[in-house]
Amino acid sequence: MAQNNTAGAESEQLKSGGRITKREEDYSRWYLDVIAAAELADYAPVKGCMVIRPNGYAIWEKMQAGLDKMFKDTGHVNAYFPLFIPESFMRKEADHVEGFAPECAVVTHGGGKKLDEPLFIRPTSETIIWSMYKRWIQSYRDLPILINQWANVVRWEMRTRLFLRTTEFLWQEGHTAHATFEDAEKETLQMLEVYRTFAEDYMAVPVVPGVKTEKEKFAGAIKTYCIEAMMQDRKALQAGTSHHLGQNFAKAFDVQYLDEQGKREYVWATSWGVSTRLVGALIMTHSDDNGLIIPPKLAPLEVVLVPIWKGADEQAAILERANQIVADWKGKFSFKLDDRDNYRPGFKFNEWEKRGVPIRIEMGPKDLQNNNAVLVRRDTGTKRVVAQANLTEEIRQTLSQMQTDLYNRALAFREQNSKAIDDYQQFKKEIDAPGGFFWTHWCGDRACEDRLQNETKATIRCIPRIAASIQLAAEGKCLLCGGAAKEQVIIAKAY
Amino acid sequence: MAQNNTAGAESEQLKSGGRITKREEDYSRWYLDVIAAAELADYAPVKGCMVIRPNGYAIWEKMQAGLDKMFKDTGHVNAYFPLFIPESFMRKEADHVEGFAPECAVVTHGGGKKLDEPLFIRPTSETIIWSMYKRWIQSYRDLPILINQWANVVRWEMRTRLFLRTTEFLWQEGHTAHATFEDAEKETLQMLEVYRTFAEDYMAVPVVPGVKTEKEKFAGAIKTYCIEAMMQDRKALQAGTSHHLGQNFAKAFDVQYLDEQGKREYVWATSWGVSTRLVGALIMTHSDDNGLIIPPKLAPLEVVLVPIWKGADEQAAILERANQIVADWKGKFSFKLDDRDNYRPGFKFNEWEKRGVPIRIEMGPKDLQNNNAVLVRRDTGTKRVVAQANLTEEIRQTLSQMQTDLYNRALAFREQNSKAIDDYQQFKKEIDAPGGFFWTHWCGDRACEDRLQNETKATIRCIPRIAASIQLAAEGKCLLCGGAAKEQVIIAKAY
Repeated sequence: MAQNNTAGAESEQLKSGGRITKREEDYSRWYLDVIAAAELADYAPVKGCMVIRPNGYAIWEKMQAGLDKMFKDTGHVNAYFPLFIPESFMRKEADHVEGFAPECAVVTHGGGKKLDEPLFIRPTSETIIWSMYKRWIQSYRDLPILINQWANVVRWEMRTRLFLRTTEFLWQEGHTAHATFEDAEKETLQMLEVYRTFAEDYMAVPVVPGVKTEKEKFAGAIKTYCIEAMMQDRKALQAGTSHHLGQNFAKAFDVQYLDEQGKREYVWATSWGVSTRLVGALIMTHSDDNGLIIPPKLAPLEVVLVPIWKGADEQAAILERANQIVADWKGKFSFKLDDRDNYRPGFKFNEWEKRGVPIRIEMGPKDLQNNNAVLVRRDTGTKRVVAQANLTEEIRQTLSQMQTDLYNRALAFREQNSKAIDDYQQFKKEIDAPGGFFWTHWCGDRACEDRLQNETKATIRCIPRIAASIQLAAEGKCLLCGGAAKEQVIIAKAY
Repeated sequence: MAQNNTAGAESEQLKSGGRITKREEDYSRWYLDVIAAAELADYAPVKGCMVIRPNGYAIWEKMQAGLDKMFKDTGHVNAYFPLFIPESFMRKEADHVEGFAPECAVVTHGGGKKLDEPLFIRPTSETIIWSMYKRWIQSYRDLPILINQWANVVRWEMRTRLFLRTTEFLWQEGHTAHATFEDAEKETLQMLEVYRTFAEDYMAVPVVPGVKTEKEKFAGAIKTYCIEAMMQDRKALQAGTSHHLGQNFAKAFDVQYLDEQGKREYVWATSWGVSTRLVGALIMTHSDDNGLIIPPKLAPLEVVLVPIWKGADEQAAILERANQIVADWKGKFSFKLDDRDNYRPGFKFNEWEKRGVPIRIEMGPKDLQNNNAVLVRRDTGTKRVVAQANLTEEIRQTLSQMQTDLYNRALAFREQNSKAIDDYQQFKKEIDAPGGFFWTHWCGDRACEDRLQNETKATIRCIPRIAASIQLAAEGKCLLCGGAAKEQVIIAKAY
């Protein structure tokens, strides 16, 4: 059957500049409305693809800058590998091809001719990269290799959602090569911790670090670590993964090194990645019924000053003072003085609110007289009169406070919506509504895991690596079969 | 005929760590040897594709940072559009499809199924972007749109060369939309000037800004501006292009706007781009028979300190001092203290030389005693004894001087190898050897332009927009047909 790949009704779904649906009314619709109102993204003409508009891309650029610095501070360097992977390469690692081949886009023609061997568009780059590591690694002196790549990848998805799941997406993928199992394990855990730090400190999104089950691990890994976040509809979102690949790819591509004793050994590997999906996680964690909320550390624009005037005299006086005020902000904040005279203040307030600018400063003729201004916080809506002389310092403190508050609010929400459960019937009643993270016991059997998914559409998100704030007995019985539990796990519905 | 798309002998061409062929011996081989010795890139397993290795990618990152700042300073924002373009979109602009369709890679299958409509992998993004501008542009208030994209593109090339011409390459493409012809023309020229500034001030590569002939202009443009550089083998290299697209894409995608008088008008467009080809231009302009030379402003590593010792006592004393010295460099230069004890100094000198680090500081026991160090310039090989107390300032000055000197050296080389010529027989004797830039007159006829290329493989590089340092009569006869000249042009062989 041929597959229709042009976007139909989907491309009409984004309202431009329209009302934002309330979360409690229709959460999915709300999410798309927030994206449309802030002009973060749009549907592309090709089904499942998206256009990241300047407002959305600016957030991704801030994310890239933060992550890239953390990668370089931990000794990694960037490189670039080709988009195309020969079909035969994909087939060299059995689990890998089974996991990825079905969702690949395939190039069959180039330069007007049919190709001898079809080329897969990378869904991830382990195979192409390990074919190069084969050339570059001879001895222990060549190890470790600590390479990261910023790139686009393609996975043919049937059901897509802007930022969260798209056919093409942008990401970074780290691919490292090590002399020993221990070195690779250390790297895998180090990058998991980098991701946790980034999610919590920059995105203000609390995450549970954990390990995926065998069923859910990366195709080709021996172990997949992950960070899981809770969205406002209480569903889980996998925000980053770090894989210990063992010697699977080294064996598939015959990459051996001579150790210090002159013995040949297969090389150990890791890979780890986060993607533009993080922008979706950011939106879903913090935003409200008035539109986007961005934590200050990732806000492309931190402060906007909206002057209020009637008539030309007031305008001149207000703008003079406004310009003096923002002059002090240069190099301290990213800011904008919204001095457009073809829009009313109310329109401007609404626009910057929808776009998630953390702080709005309002200043009218009365404020001018009293040497004051009004500081408005985007997350709480709180308005405060502040002396102009103290404005810079008040903004600095408020941005910092807002970053902390957003994290704490999200953490409190997750904790309120996490619970221990050991009764499957009760779980089935609660998984759809209210939903949330369910901490429970699992026997470790794939059969129970499959049954859980078939009966409830929920999945084991991870075997958590943090102590539960939830009271859960150290020993217990499998939620599904009642057998002796092997693991404590978190179950949830997920994006 | 099926096309062989796996890399064969080509992938064996790069010597790793071997001797660098001399330029006069074999210029093409020299170029590849420099790339191999500095580990800048490698051939990929797919024919015509390349891997940009960390040392090469670090240069590209410096280029990106410099350009991105210049784009943002001129009011542009970044965004991201999809990799895939429906075949039907490519066909909407007649010249565009004729120019690009023959060199496209085509996706025919996705998710295990044949697609209804084949998808082209973007060779450039005008069509997909203008299909979106159609949605985003309603009135003059929506203009201008000043968007840039950093992305990979694919053009199926038969004859490739690392960095200079590869099937997949990285680039930036600006795509702007304007209300009037004049606004678009101003933008086109502004970006040409940004490219000229970047090439000359950052890359230390002198360029001739000019206009392409009708034959050589971008498929879909009304006018293509370019910057042309001269490589050390006297061939030209097109280093950047800025296109005035007129209303061609607005008409193809029916993008009209309401002007202030309520009248509907088609939108005016520009596009402009530079690519990883610039890394090739950088290598070919400055490097020598000892390997890579990088102008300081684009050097990922500006200074390396190589301490020299015999025995553990000397080692301890030297390293203590070396660490004190580099402590003062933090935040001032990007530097490395090469304290590896498993390599000899001579090996290290050679390694950093091949990699193009602008300044090497050597410090041995005698230097330690005299509070001196030896400063070695990569471009001239000059060695100078410098008091340790003055080292930081001397490095600062030397980096600045080297940036200027590299530019001046390249400019002098170009001027020495540029000449006025009005005799076609003489031109044919000189175009292969010594080669260079030939300033001459042209009647403006396509027939003469075709004949030139057929008979000599040289092309009209541009109608220059700078006053020639060459003496060329304001009026003259066409080099080819002897007819009345319409344009002064530069002719050269080119990459």
